[in-house]
Amino acid sequence: MKRKLFTGMGIAGVSLVLAASPAWAQGNTEASAIVQTVMDNLWVFIAGILVFFMQAGFALVEAGLTRSKNVANIMAKNIADMCIGVLAFFAVGYAFAYGSGGGWFIGGNSWFLSGESLFALPDPELLETGEWVSGGLSGATDFFFQVVFAATAVTIASGAMAGRTKFSAYLLFSALMTAFIYPVVVHWTWGGGLIAEFINWGDADSYSDFAGSGIVHLTGGVAALMGAIALGPRIGKYGSDGKPRAIPGHNIVFTVIGVFILWLGWFGFNPGSELAADGVVMSVALNTLIAAAAGGAVSAVVVVMKTGKPDVGMVGNGVLGGLVGITAGCGAFNTFGSLLTGAVAGALVVYSVLFIEKKGIDDPVGAVSVHGTCGIWGVLAIGLFSRYDDAFLGRDDAGLFYGGGLDQLSVQAVMVVIIVAWTAITAGIAFQIIKKTTGLRVSPEEEAAGLDISEHGAAGYHLETTN
Amino acid sequence: MKRKLFTGMGIAGVSLVLAASPAWAQGNTEASAIVQTVMDNLWVFIAGILVFFMQAGFALVEAGLTRSKNVANIMAKNIADMCIGVLAFFAVGYAFAYGSGGGWFIGGNSWFLSGESLFALPDPELLETGEWVSGGLSGATDFFFQVVFAATAVTIASGAMAGRTKFSAYLLFSALMTAFIYPVVVHWTWGGGLIAEFINWGDADSYSDFAGSGIVHLTGGVAALMGAIALGPRIGKYGSDGKPRAIPGHNIVFTVIGVFILWLGWFGFNPGSELAADGVVMSVALNTLIAAAAGGAVSAVVVVMKTGKPDVGMVGNGVLGGLVGITAGCGAFNTFGSLLTGAVAGALVVYSVLFIEKKGIDDPVGAVSVHGTCGIWGVLAIGLFSRYDDAFLGRDDAGLFYGGGLDQLSVQAVMVVIIVAWTAITAGIAFQIIKKTTGLRVSPEEEAAGLDISEHGAAGYHLETTN
Amino acid sequence: MKRKLFTGMGIAGVSLVLAASPAWAQGNTEASAIVQTVMDNLWVFIAGILVFFMQAGFALVEAGLTRSKNVANIMAKNIADMCIGVLAFFAVGYAFAYGSGGGWFIGGNSWFLSGESLFALPDPELLETGEWVSGGLSGATDFFFQVVFAATAVTIASGAMAGRTKFSAYLLFSALMTAFIYPVVVHWTWGGGLIAEFINWGDADSYSDFAGSGIVHLTGGVAALMGAIALGPRIGKYGSDGKPRAIPGHNIVFTVIGVFILWLGWFGFNPGSELAADGVVMSVALNTLIAAAAGGAVSAVVVVMKTGKPDVGMVGNGVLGGLVGITAGCGAFNTFGSLLTGAVAGALVVYSVLFIEKKGIDDPVGAVSVHGTCGIWGVLAIGLFSRYDDAFLGRDDAGLFYGGGLDQLSVQAVMVVIIVAWTAITAGIAFQIIKKTTGLRVSPEEEAAGLDISEHGAAGYHLETTN
Repeated sequence: MKRKLFTGMGIAGVSLVLAASPAWAQGNTEASAIVQTVMDNLWVFIAGILVFFMQAGFALVEAGLTRSKNVANIMAKNIADMCIGVLAFFAVGYAFAYGSGGGWFIGGNSWFLSGESLFALPDPELLETGEWVSGGLSGATDFFFQVVFAATAVTIASGAMAGRTKFSAYLLFSALMTAFIYPVVVHWTWGGGLIAEFINWGDADSYSDFAGSGIVHLTGGVAALMGAIALGPRIGKYGSDGKPRAIPGHNIVFTVIGVFILWLGWFGFNPGSELAADGVVMSVALNTLIAAAAGGAVSAVVVVMKTGKPDVGMVGNGVLGGLVGITAGCGAFNTFGSLLTGAVAGALVVYSVLFIEKKGIDDPVGAVSVHGTCGIWGVLAIGLFSRYDDAFLGRDDAGLFYGGGLDQLSVQAVMVVIIVAWTAITAGIAFQIIKKTTGLRVSPEEEAAGLDISEHGAAGYHLETTN
Repeated sequence: MKRKLFTGMGIAGVSLVLAASPAWAQGNTEASAIVQTVMDNLWVFIAGILVFFMQAGFALVEAGLTRSKNVANIMAKNIADMCIGVLAFFAVGYAFAYGSGGGWFIGGNSWFLSGESLFALPDPELLETGEWVSGGLSGATDFFFQVVFAATAVTIASGAMAGRTKFSAYLLFSALMTAFIYPVVVHWTWGGGLIAEFINWGDADSYSDFAGSGIVHLTGGVAALMGAIALGPRIGKYGSDGKPRAIPGHNIVFTVIGVFILWLGWFGFNPGSELAADGVVMSVALNTLIAAAAGGAVSAVVVVMKTGKPDVGMVGNGVLGGLVGITAGCGAFNTFGSLLTGAVAGALVVYSVLFIEKKGIDDPVGAVSVHGTCGIWGVLAIGLFSRYDDAFLGRDDAGLFYGGGLDQLSVQAVMVVIIVAWTAITAGIAFQIIKKTTGLRVSPEEEAAGLDISEHGAAGYHLETTN
Repeated sequence: MKRKLFTGMGIAGVSLVLAASPAWAQGNTEASAIVQTVMDNLWVFIAGILVFFMQAGFALVEAGLTRSKNVANIMAKNIADMCIGVLAFFAVGYAFAYGSGGGWFIGGNSWFLSGESLFALPDPELLETGEWVSGGLSGATDFFFQVVFAATAVTIASGAMAGRTKFSAYLLFSALMTAFIYPVVVHWTWGGGLIAEFINWGDADSYSDFAGSGIVHLTGGVAALMGAIALGPRIGKYGSDGKPRAIPGHNIVFTVIGVFILWLGWFGFNPGSELAADGVVMSVALNTLIAAAAGGAVSAVVVVMKTGKPDVGMVGNGVLGGLVGITAGCGAFNTFGSLLTGAVAGALVVYSVLFIEKKGIDDPVGAVSVHGTCGIWGVLAIGLFSRYDDAFLGRDDAGLFYGGGLDQLSVQAVMVVIIVAWTAITAGIAFQIIKKTTGLRVSPEEEAAGLDISEHGAAGYHLETTN
């Protein structure tokens, strides 16, 4: 991701094209440097399009796993996340995350993209300084890729809050998340704030998170958890004995097609985070594919062991868990590390969903488990399987484990604590303020009638008797 | 778009790669020129794929906003638009639009792509003449990108004619639209006909329409209007008092996922219209994203003001209105001009839908408002926010308004009148002929039974009692 | 496809960029060669993403054309095909197909991608040997593109086995198909085994199959046929008089959106099989588009002639038949050959579906006809319309027919026989073993209840009375 100042980035930012043989870099003519720069921008833009489309995937997964009487509301929330996310991130979020004028806590300047060079591609003369690839995105390309990540972060919370949240309250939360809560996390990591300045065990061991298992998914997952707690469970989710009851989703086709769309989008999310077009892109995609497959397969085995049947929604969440898990390490692991990371994530999802349900927290789609639990696992896995070393540029593929070492593992754990604390506190305060002012939850009557009717004035489905 | 002979193109056609520093262009080796040419073709092809996929988005939006008893018919129309559109545009439409052998009214030659160089990429020796980028697409690339636009233009009309049109009559109209009505509009503008020859207030002020707010969407929107008028409203749409009654759509998930797919496709539609891979592509995408977000947000506010509830289908149309609105100016506006264009379009959609409904015209999906009304707005906005000037190549981003000036505004308005007149007359005649010969509308009994049964012999849905 | 050692490849593998003017190749600097290599990898990777997404299309087509009580099972099978396919092809399938250590029958080495260079792009010094483009994919790029083809091959069979297959039995079959049956066919053709060694009528006439009408679709179609035969028809498909009865699909929207997604994915499947970024890519896409349109149009005409109504599902299958048909010849035909190939395929689908149904074989989605029948037609069409000749590099576009000649036709027919025999025997044995051990088909009670309940423990849909 942009301006990566720590391990995951500083190194990834240097294109293999240059790295593989420094001699060739010298041979690069200016003309080739321009063409390569255009290709870098084009690829990151195409990757951004794929991430954009994940919004449709999130909408379908959430719709499929919840009740039919709230389906229009779910669609509305997902459109709103993109509309509000784009406007809020454009106005202030991008500046908070990457603006040059701030300090370790938060960025400044660049409000409304002012001062960003949106059209011009970087000066190829940067080639001479060796920075032309890592600094090679135009302002438009960079914003496009960053803003769709912001929309992803907020949408994660949507699923955990399904079926009982006031639409107006959700819009407020969505704006706050994309304008402030998420951008601060980005500033602390990819934006060169906190981590680069304070939490840095030396170049080789600073926080590493290639595409955002922690920065995007954990942040979204914690916000989801705080939302679910602030709201309380849906009516009927827990019996008078306090035991959870199943509220089945209404359309498994939507859920699974949503999973496929998210999986598709992840081939932009992870490989696009290389922020350049080079040979690393495809190996990141390969790791992403293998981890997702392992996540799906292992979740199927575990859910059969626990319940006797291969629940389809759970397998879908296993695939997503594998994807979230590999998001941090996809640029640093070999294929075996990726396989293992995905497999563990696939098991974690099932246990986490059952654990959270038992604790009285109603997360209708499993968002906390998929993005929170597997997000933590993904961040920590860097300390176990990462292959960053002096030979990193060659990306030596032999052997199973390298391991970032204990130093690496500890800095990863510290950042998990920081992200959880920051998001829990800010989202928690936000939900309390909303609760006290506009109100966070609809009335029991409105909930029973369904949010489609009560909040949007029309049912989501109308099936005629003639059909 | 291809062979842009007026402002929007002549300038856009010159790649920023060259423009940013003419000195580098000199430094370009032939080898780099070839690689750049391949990338230009590859990007425009990928953009064409995205536009192709919009057909699925149109199908879903139309299906979701209409009744379940006509859903198979809607799917059939959308497949047919692509099949017929490809064959008709291949046979004659492309030649009418871009064929070299015609005059100001219509093109000639190139029937069945004969004489087009489908495989070979342009001769890099064109580099020496400074034309290698703008003329850099192979015949196959160019046709692919153009034909999916033609399919879009006709599909727009499908929604306004939903629920009562004979399938055979629709097929006739679809062929006529892609073979003749739309190609003539293209020839007059992007094809170098009418506009280039007659309506040209000088280089700086000739008609500008980067990706087709007027050429594609307004043409489709006017055809939609003529179709809706020729058909008359669906049975039950207007009470005996003449007042409109709501006929709710049957599946909001389809509608919103369709909107997301269209939004996705627009990242090919607009940025692909640069017809080259350069730094402008991503800024066009940024403008597209911001306008759509503004359109969705403003439509939500306006619909709440008018009805008290955030109707989800209307917000979806607000997003689409913002997209249609920015389609003309996405290559010429800065981000603030784009924001404003999208915002105005979002409001226009709501008022236009209500106005058209009140006038007794039954447009089940709001196609006339989204594509017609916002198409006009997009074309006119060029006269307000366009930043084309001597410094254009540098794409100065400072300040809010530049404005194309009154000359520019007037030429834009003239072209709106021409497009509306041409399409209204030709589509109007076509619908009358169809009405008098094969018939345009199904019988009331067939309409009541649903087109799925009466026209296709099988219902679109079969839900079993066991489920 | 990779390491194409026969006509379709040896020639296609040489980029037009080089071919158009060998003089320019000399002028290529090393820098440009690197940038071109990155672009080759990037394009093939993007094409692979599109093919990946076809899995969602297959899922939707199959779901739409079958009964609602089996819809969760269908979704589960399609997720499983991707998860199992990736893991099995990663473990052994890729090695069997392309591993260097085997003989004419099967490949070896490369287990778990060991020894493959996943990150590094090929050495541009290959440029000097003239092989840099055709050998220009990294191990990661190549595996990614190959594995999504493997997943496609197995998923084809899923549809023919819908509604009565044990989930565990299907998983076994899926693993066997992606680990062994399909990889062997690939090894014999694209992998340099059997065909390259034995069945070779000389360079100009060896087996040609650009993207796999035979290698992928026929293999999948024959497996589908064997599965349908081994299972027997669904309860109620044939009356006591032995005559087939219609079991209508439950959701035409899913079917048609699935067709659009598959059509979209085919723009990766076919043009990506060029395995390089050059001017051939877009002409392959053009041929693909035209054949699909012709297939859809002709199938509509034929189905109206046979039944009186334009059945929408059949038109969708006509489009898919056109796509399967052109998959072998898309790199070798001109536009007229493509049009004709698609048109014939569109008619074949309808007749084949009716024929197979009459023969007592229950293929709920028409997979055998679409992929098997049209796959055979596509392979044979190479002998009729292929334009491979000495002037091939120039891809002369004039005239309608060239024809591969009788030699070409006979080698194509021999390979059809080989693929059919291999797949029928191996899949047939596999199904018999499964039948005798774990069992292949669910009990009549489970079938009546629906696989969603009996195999996965939950219905796929839950529509509430409040809606």
